[in-house]
Amino acid sequence: MTDPEETVARALQGDRRSQARLISAVEERSEAAEIIGRQLAPLAGSAHIVGITGAPGVGKSTTTSALVGHWRERGLRVAVVAIDPSSPFTGGALLGDRVRMTEHSTDRNVFIRSMAARGQLGGLSAATPGAIRVLDACGFDIVVVETVGVGQNEVDVVRFADTVLILMAPGMGDRIQANKAGLLEIGDVIAVNKSDRPGAAAAQRELRAMISAKPLAAGDWRPPVLGISAADGSGLPELVETLAEHQEVTAASGHLAARRAARASAEVASLAEEAFMGRISANGERLKTLATQVTGGQLDPYAAAHTLLAEIGLERENR
Amino acid sequence: MTDPEETVARALQGDRRSQARLISAVEERSEAAEIIGRQLAPLAGSAHIVGITGAPGVGKSTTTSALVGHWRERGLRVAVVAIDPSSPFTGGALLGDRVRMTEHSTDRNVFIRSMAARGQLGGLSAATPGAIRVLDACGFDIVVVETVGVGQNEVDVVRFADTVLILMAPGMGDRIQANKAGLLEIGDVIAVNKSDRPGAAAAQRELRAMISAKPLAAGDWRPPVLGISAADGSGLPELVETLAEHQEVTAASGHLAARRAARASAEVASLAEEAFMGRISANGERLKTLATQVTGGQLDPYAAAHTLLAEIGLERENR
Repeated sequence: MTDPEETVARALQGDRRSQARLISAVEERSEAAEIIGRQLAPLAGSAHIVGITGAPGVGKSTTTSALVGHWRERGLRVAVVAIDPSSPFTGGALLGDRVRMTEHSTDRNVFIRSMAARGQLGGLSAATPGAIRVLDACGFDIVVVETVGVGQNEVDVVRFADTVLILMAPGMGDRIQANKAGLLEIGDVIAVNKSDRPGAAAAQRELRAMISAKPLAAGDWRPPVLGISAADGSGLPELVETLAEHQEVTAASGHLAARRAARASAEVASLAEEAFMGRISANGERLKTLATQVTGGQLDPYAAAHTLLAEIGLERENR
Repeated sequence: MTDPEETVARALQGDRRSQARLISAVEERSEAAEIIGRQLAPLAGSAHIVGITGAPGVGKSTTTSALVGHWRERGLRVAVVAIDPSSPFTGGALLGDRVRMTEHSTDRNVFIRSMAARGQLGGLSAATPGAIRVLDACGFDIVVVETVGVGQNEVDVVRFADTVLILMAPGMGDRIQANKAGLLEIGDVIAVNKSDRPGAAAAQRELRAMISAKPLAAGDWRPPVLGISAADGSGLPELVETLAEHQEVTAASGHLAARRAARASAEVASLAEEAFMGRISANGERLKTLATQVTGGQLDPYAAAHTLLAEIGLERENR
């Protein structure tokens, strides 16, 4: 990026190509990313950040697309960041889902972007809040972060959204949705998609029972369980209302501010961790030498780690 | 652990409870872990480390259990480390699979252990090589690391095994096995389980075509695709032979040593990263203050990260 300030200015005026370039810079952690972060941080904070996750096959893309349509009817500007599972999941099948979003591709008030982690450990943890900040500062009213709920990294990406929507579907088998309990832990709103299918009512009852077993403090938001059908649109208006209600309630209770602070904490920690891992990578040859001594039995892995830390300047703390 | 040296000595004599305690110490990163690492590093290196992964429902536990039976028939001592998906995946359904392994629970030459990451970022990346080292040093001939192939963290745990076995099953749909291409990238041996089912032959043909498209250097191992049925045992003897053959071929070519060095590198880097993240956690209040300044728009996340790094002693490098 030859002139980050100029690109930021254009993006703030609504230029989509500039917005896309800012996100790329954040994603690639180019030097411009710091300038962008510095300029946009004071401008962000008014968008409603909605995280959407669930097992493969529950209908995340269809639901997101349907929600986008409803938000647009209300005159809201919507950005969608679709996280594709990180390498080694090249995930062609999942990228194919993006095609369904094409109905919105000619709408200038809808911004859609796929992001991948490119194999960086925790890369998404730092890039996603950065991308959210860009879109938030550029004036989108709703920023959706959508990811498949099948791994810790993937779920961590959405857990600090302002509102986390968990999608389920009846009849998929517990084995596929084995992470149901884990997903419920982070959900603010639960929607059972394909609610016209057999077992949908039972699935909703079961989910309500699981949620009502969760201990809550007085005044805490209890995640509602809604039945929807993204395909025919039933239940979607209620879902849109419920997502907005969650934001209002948590803004009033202070939970929204706490969630945003947690998101910023995770982002800052991830950026610090990346800088640290960059230092380790820069000492890759030294790491290799130490590792060879470990496999040769001359050095134990802890001693090797301490040696490496001392050499990059992080002294061992006294216990 | 009151006396790590004593526990190590007992574990090396074959005491299973002591072996289990060593793994717990490694898993919990207790202070004894360093003593254990130091004492066992010179003794490890003779076991064959076999990683097994695949999508949920392909029959990982059944296959592992069948393989254990075959190895035992050959007089080999076998340890299995079953990685249960890390929090937020409390994974009751997956833990239930462990029950199938009970047929080996009375065999003194079979050691079975479940491990979970307990929510630590990359926690398994450091704990798994440590657990492998304990079992390797204690004289197990085969150490299996089994994990569900549904997230980057989970797959990273097995990718540096000496031999990586990828399990597939016909008729599960591309959506569920969306990570097929990613899994194939790390596979040394591919087995299509449930090979009596319709579509098994087609699945094998498709996988062979995918693998033959992979560019290989002269003398490189080309992953074979086998049909098996863990339930009725067909194909299992061939699979056992193929796994052993992979180890022989890669030991001769030098690829095995390279894989082990890569495993040790990943372990040392993970331990260093953990130490770093521990330092960040110890400064949790400071991180919180900085994060609040970020959400308030007074500070950008990069500046916050640099401040934090400087405060824990890691100075910014000159560019």
